[in-house]
Amino acid sequence: MSQKNALPVTRQEDFAAWYQAVIQEADLAEESGVRGCMIMRPWGYGIWERIQMLLDRKIKESGHENCYFPLFIPLSYFAKEAEHVEGFAKEMAVVTHHRLKMEDGALVVDPEAKLEEPLVVRPTSETVIGTAFSRWLQSWRDLPIMVNQWANVVRWEMRTRMFLRTSEFLWQEGHTAHENETDAMAETLTILQMYRDFAQGPLAMPVIAGEKPENERFPGAVATYSIEAMMQDGKALQAGTSHYLGQNFAHAQNIRFQDREGQFQFAHTTSWGVSTRLVGGVIMTHGDDDGLKVPPQIAPHQIVIVPMLRETPEDEALLAYCAKIRTALIDASAFGEPLRVLIDKKPGKAGPKRWGWVKKGAPIILEIGGRDAAGEQVTMIRRDSLYGEDGRLANQAMHWESFVGQAPALLDQIQTLMFCSAKARLDAEIRDDVTDLEGLKAHFEGSKYPGWVAVDWCRPTGEALEKVVEQLKALKLTIRNTPEGSAPASTTCFFTGGPAVERVLLARAY
Amino acid sequence: MSQKNALPVTRQEDFAAWYQAVIQEADLAEESGVRGCMIMRPWGYGIWERIQMLLDRKIKESGHENCYFPLFIPLSYFAKEAEHVEGFAKEMAVVTHHRLKMEDGALVVDPEAKLEEPLVVRPTSETVIGTAFSRWLQSWRDLPIMVNQWANVVRWEMRTRMFLRTSEFLWQEGHTAHENETDAMAETLTILQMYRDFAQGPLAMPVIAGEKPENERFPGAVATYSIEAMMQDGKALQAGTSHYLGQNFAHAQNIRFQDREGQFQFAHTTSWGVSTRLVGGVIMTHGDDDGLKVPPQIAPHQIVIVPMLRETPEDEALLAYCAKIRTALIDASAFGEPLRVLIDKKPGKAGPKRWGWVKKGAPIILEIGGRDAAGEQVTMIRRDSLYGEDGRLANQAMHWESFVGQAPALLDQIQTLMFCSAKARLDAEIRDDVTDLEGLKAHFEGSKYPGWVAVDWCRPTGEALEKVVEQLKALKLTIRNTPEGSAPASTTCFFTGGPAVERVLLARAY
Ligand SMILES: [Zn+2]
Ligand SMILES: [Zn+2]
Repeated sequence: MSQKNALPVTRQEDFAAWYQAVIQEADLAEESGVRGCMIMRPWGYGIWERIQMLLDRKIKESGHENCYFPLFIPLSYFAKEAEHVEGFAKEMAVVTHHRLKMEDGALVVDPEAKLEEPLVVRPTSETVIGTAFSRWLQSWRDLPIMVNQWANVVRWEMRTRMFLRTSEFLWQEGHTAHENETDAMAETLTILQMYRDFAQGPLAMPVIAGEKPENERFPGAVATYSIEAMMQDGKALQAGTSHYLGQNFAHAQNIRFQDREGQFQFAHTTSWGVSTRLVGGVIMTHGDDDGLKVPPQIAPHQIVIVPMLRETPEDEALLAYCAKIRTALIDASAFGEPLRVLIDKKPGKAGPKRWGWVKKGAPIILEIGGRDAAGEQVTMIRRDSLYGEDGRLANQAMHWESFVGQAPALLDQIQTLMFCSAKARLDAEIRDDVTDLEGLKAHFEGSKYPGWVAVDWCRPTGEALEKVVEQLKALKLTIRNTPEGSAPASTTCFFTGGPAVERVLLARAY
Repeated sequence: MSQKNALPVTRQEDFAAWYQAVIQEADLAEESGVRGCMIMRPWGYGIWERIQMLLDRKIKESGHENCYFPLFIPLSYFAKEAEHVEGFAKEMAVVTHHRLKMEDGALVVDPEAKLEEPLVVRPTSETVIGTAFSRWLQSWRDLPIMVNQWANVVRWEMRTRMFLRTSEFLWQEGHTAHENETDAMAETLTILQMYRDFAQGPLAMPVIAGEKPENERFPGAVATYSIEAMMQDGKALQAGTSHYLGQNFAHAQNIRFQDREGQFQFAHTTSWGVSTRLVGGVIMTHGDDDGLKVPPQIAPHQIVIVPMLRETPEDEALLAYCAKIRTALIDASAFGEPLRVLIDKKPGKAGPKRWGWVKKGAPIILEIGGRDAAGEQVTMIRRDSLYGEDGRLANQAMHWESFVGQAPALLDQIQTLMFCSAKARLDAEIRDDVTDLEGLKAHFEGSKYPGWVAVDWCRPTGEALEKVVEQLKALKLTIRNTPEGSAPASTTCFFTGGPAVERVLLARAY
C-alpha cells in the first residue's frame, strides 16, 4: 500500500472524479433515485450534525433565536417582491395538487384536488419570514428581531453535484430586522465575521471574507458579503453569504414600526446562510488521494479503535482492553467537549476496516491486536500524516496511558496543522502580479489548477460592470469578492485604466 | 390577580379555546398564512429543540445512526407498496412543475416545466428508505441496519389544529432492518419502551404503552404499538408509535440478503416516530388557567430572572447583581446539564414581564428589585405552585446563595411533582367498572371530561372487529391500545360475550 493510494483516482488525474470517489468511498452520501436529491449517509450527515451543533451555539450566543417557518410559500408572496423574483432563478418546485387517487388500478394525481393557489417549496424564506415580521413589529422597542431557522430548501437544478449543488439541500437561514442602517450593517458584518471564524476554526478551512460585486448580489439586496474558500483544484467555493437588504424587503412586505419620535419607519433587514455545501468545501479543502480528512472539531468520531478480532475466545479480552481505553479517552476533553471515540466492532478483517476509516478521514485510528493488549500498548495512525519518509504507512506504538494523556493535545494539533496547511496553499495560490487581460488569459489557460488572481479595479457599476463581467466570462472567470480592508496596490483599474479604488479576486468557481 | 387567571378562558369553560389561548399567550406558535402550516416561535420551537436533543441522545445510545433522505418521493415508489398506499390517506402535497415564469406581468406556473413523473412531498419515508436499504443490504453481516432521520413531513389536512394536526410537521422517523422476526420485534418493543420512558421522564407525561388494535395499525404493518397520553379534557393523545412491518415492505422493495446458510431471505423491518405533536401533549398535560407549565427538563430557560428596571442609573447595579446570580446558577447542574438561566432585560415593567413568563411556563421566576439586591435576596415564584392557600400569588424571599444552592434540587422536584400530579390524574380517570354498552354510553355522555374506560375483549379481527369499531364510533369512541402485560379481569368479552383474552382502553381521542 506504500505508493498506491486508497482511492481509484487521484486529484491530479481528475479532480471531479476524485471528488465523487471520496464521497462514495467515505460513505458520505449517495444518489437517491430522486432527481437532484441525495441521501446523506451517517458519516456525511454526522459531519453536518457537528457543523450544525457548533454553529448553532454561535448563532444563539450572538442573540438569535431559532424558529420554524413553513415549507410552502404561496405564489402570491413572491409576486410582492419584484426585484427579488426577477433576479431569483425561477426554477422552483411547485405544489399544484393535494391528493392522489387510484384510477384503473394505478395511483395518479387527482385532478379534482387542484389547489386554488399554487404553493412554492421554499427556495429561501425572506418572503414568508418578512410577512411574519410585519405582524410582530409595532414599535422600536420590538427591535431588533433576530431569528434563525435550520431547514431544507429546494432550488430546481438541472446539473447537480453532491453537497455542492443539489435540488434539495439543508441550511440555516438567519433573518433580522433593525431600527436603522447602522445596526443592520453591523449585524451583516458580525455574521460575516462569525462565518469566517467558523470556517477557519471548526472547519479548518481558510477563507477570504469580503463584499461581492453588484452583479453577484442576492436579488433585492443592497450589499452582499461572502466567505470564499479555495478548493485544491484552485476553484473558489462561496461558502457562506450575509446580505444587507436595506429597506427593500421591508417596503415590499410592510415591515414597519413607530420610531422613538412616534413616526412610522420601514425596518432595515438582513439575511444570511450557510448550507450542506460546507461539507463539499471540507472535502475539497482537506481530502487527499486516500480519501477524506475530517478536522477533529467536526469529526463524528475523533478516534476510532479497530480491534484485530479473530473470532476466537481471546476476542473478549481484547474488546475489554479496548473498552478500558475508550472509557479513559471519553473522560478527557478537546475543544471544550468530551472526546468522541468509537470501537469498531463490526465483523470483518482489521486491514480493510483500517482503510475504511482512512478513507472516511477519522483523525486518529488505533489498531489494537492481541500483542498490543499484552504489552499494554496501542498502535496509532494519524490521518493527517499517514505515510513516513519511507513512503510506508506510519504507525506508532506507545503505552495506552501515554496515548490517553496526549490525545487531547494531539487532536488540537491536528486541527491546527490542517488549517495551516490549507492556509499556506491559499496564500501561495493568489497571484497579484497579473497586469492585463492577456496575462490573465495566459495564467488561467496555462495551468491545470491555476488558483486566484487579485487585481485592482474602479468598482464599476451598471453597463461598465457588465462589460467587465463579459470579458471575464469569456475566460470562464468570475469576480469573487473584495477582500475586507484591502487597499488597491496600484492606481489604475485593471479593466478600464480608470482610478482604482479596491482589490477584487478573480477565479473560476463552483 | 388573586382569583382571576392569566388566560382569557379556562379549561372548564372551553378546553379547545383554552388550548388556542395557551399557544397564543405563551408565544408558542401562530398561523402562518399558509393553509395548515404553522410558524413555531422561539419558545415553542425551543421546547421542540430540547425534545429533539434529549431524544436524539437516546436514539444514538441505542445504536441508531442519523441520515437524511429526500423530501420528494416519486409517485411510482408508492405504487410498489399496495397495502401501504391503500391504507394511507391519499391527501398528500404533489409537486407537478419545476418552474415559474412571468406572463403579462404576473408570476405563474410555467406549463412547459411539467415533471415527467409527479413528486410527492414525503408523508413518511418507508418507500424511499426501503429502496436505499435494498441497495445497502447484501449479507446477514450487514444487519441490523438502524437509521433515524429528523425531518419535516406533509400530510394534507382539511381541519388543522396547531401542534396536533398540521399539514407540515416535524418529526423523527426511525427505520431498521433485521435478520429475523425475533430481532425486529425486540427492536419494535425497545423503541416503545424508549418512547414511554422519554414521555414519562423529560416530558413528565404519563402514558400507557401497548399494542393498537388491527384497525388502527399503520398501513402495511404486522403490529403497531403506541404510547397514549391522557389530556386534561380526558381525551387520549397518541404520542408515539412503533411498528413491526414484518416482511411486507421488504417484499415490496426487495430488501433481501444472503443468510448464514447462503440462502436469500427478506429482511424484517420496523419503523417508529414521534413528532411536534408532543408539544401539544405537553400543553394539554401540564397547562393550567394561567398558561403553560414546561417541565424543567425541556424548558428552554429553567430559571428566568426579571430585574425590576426603572430606567435610572441604579439599573446598572441591579443588572450586575442579577448577572452574579446567573453566573453562579449556570455553574450548577440539574439532570446532568448546566442550568439554563435567562435574565430578561427587555424594556418594560416587571409585572407584565413576570406574567409573560408565567404564561410561557418557565419553571422558576426570580423577581429582583433594588430592595432584594440591597438585602442580597431574591424573590422566587414557582410556576408549579403559583398561588398560596390564601389564593394570592405565592412568592418566597431568600438569600441568593441559598437559592443557588437549592436550585438543582428544586428543578428536580418540580419535574417529579409535575409527573406525579399528571400520573394521579391518569390513574383516577380510567374506569374499569363499566360492564355494557349502555353503561359506556351513560358514562361518556354524562361527563364533560370523561376520561377512559378499560374493558376486556376477545381481540376480534376482520368483520367482528369492524362491528365493534362501528358501535364505538356511534359513541365517538376509539380503541386506544392493549396496555402491556394487562390480563383481562373478567372472562367474557365486553362486546361479544365470547371469552376475553386481554384488556383494551376506550376513549375519545385527538
Ligand atoms: Zn475600471
Ligand atoms: Zn368479543
